[in-house]
Amino acid sequence: MMSKACVFLANGLEECEALVTIDILRRAGVEVTTASIHEDKLISSSHNISFYADVLAGELDMAQFDMVVLPGGLGGTNNLAASSLVAETVKAFAADESKLVAAVCAAPSVLGMLGLLQGKKATCYPGFEDKLLGAEATGEPVVEDGNIITGKGLGATIPFALHLAARLEGAEKAEEIRQQIMYPFEI
Amino acid sequence: MMSKACVFLANGLEECEALVTIDILRRAGVEVTTASIHEDKLISSSHNISFYADVLAGELDMAQFDMVVLPGGLGGTNNLAASSLVAETVKAFAADESKLVAAVCAAPSVLGMLGLLQGKKATCYPGFEDKLLGAEATGEPVVEDGNIITGKGLGATIPFALHLAARLEGAEKAEEIRQQIMYPFEI
Repeated sequence: MMSKACVFLANGLEECEALVTIDILRRAGVEVTTASIHEDKLISSSHNISFYADVLAGELDMAQFDMVVLPGGLGGTNNLAASSLVAETVKAFAADESKLVAAVCAAPSVLGMLGLLQGKKATCYPGFEDKLLGAEATGEPVVEDGNIITGKGLGATIPFALHLAARLEGAEKAEEIRQQIMYPFEI
Repeated sequence: MMSKACVFLANGLEECEALVTIDILRRAGVEVTTASIHEDKLISSSHNISFYADVLAGELDMAQFDMVVLPGGLGGTNNLAASSLVAETVKAFAADESKLVAAVCAAPSVLGMLGLLQGKKATCYPGFEDKLLGAEATGEPVVEDGNIITGKGLGATIPFALHLAARLEGAEKAEEIRQQIMYPFEI
């Protein structure tokens, strides 16, 4: 059965942290739903790109998804942090071993401030470590600890997304996509 | 004075080859204009992302730009190849040493079929080498030869964009952006 991922989109997000992840997961055969956390599907990014989410997050049954993804960017992260829907979803997914939670750049701070990284290893954009409450911030490009996967920033988004693809569709599929997109480094 | 780049957007493009390049150039302080080559500013990508170009290409005075960029993706490349505006622009820019022409993935074939890569080194997505007429296809992630810069695919788009930033804003600025986005490899 096709695995399903939901990427939460918020105004002010780092668009390429979202879109590279969506791109790579779709290449890997994951059914990706992009979900605006606002009342409008049109999202405005930190580099002045306006693009449409597939749906409004409030209209979704989150239980259908295997993974939720939080892209970064300071404005987007602040909006994600203020959303009770996002908070409820990531708490539920983090507590369920059959689900995955992923966040990149500033967005791991959303998980950290909810206490979801307690006792775990994680990574984030430099400067956000103090919001990863109780976590060991490793500074690595990508960190997996249990069902939580974190990435450091835009420059780590391809390996971050390939790690997500590997968790959902297997390491062989992720390696196939790595070669297909001509990414020259092992993940 | 601020340098200016125009990124041509066509339906079916590999959205992240365009958007990562735009993102990195905007971070570097380049004034980037995204220009739809169609009659509509709403662009639809190869991974089902719908986003808006800033303007219609037909409304632009291309002489104002220092660089034009052609993103890849098979559908987008076919549309770029069919555009007389794109052809005229890249021919004019390639013939002017003060201008830069950049293309990634399948899109270097547009330059190649116009004869603009004759006697030059270039790179492209594997399978498009025979359309780089008269060029030496090196297979490298990024190739600069004179005023033409080519990239291999999505997985090489960050270094491709950093090379463009270096040409427009200097190597120091490109290195600053490389560190800012946490890209862990020297370009």
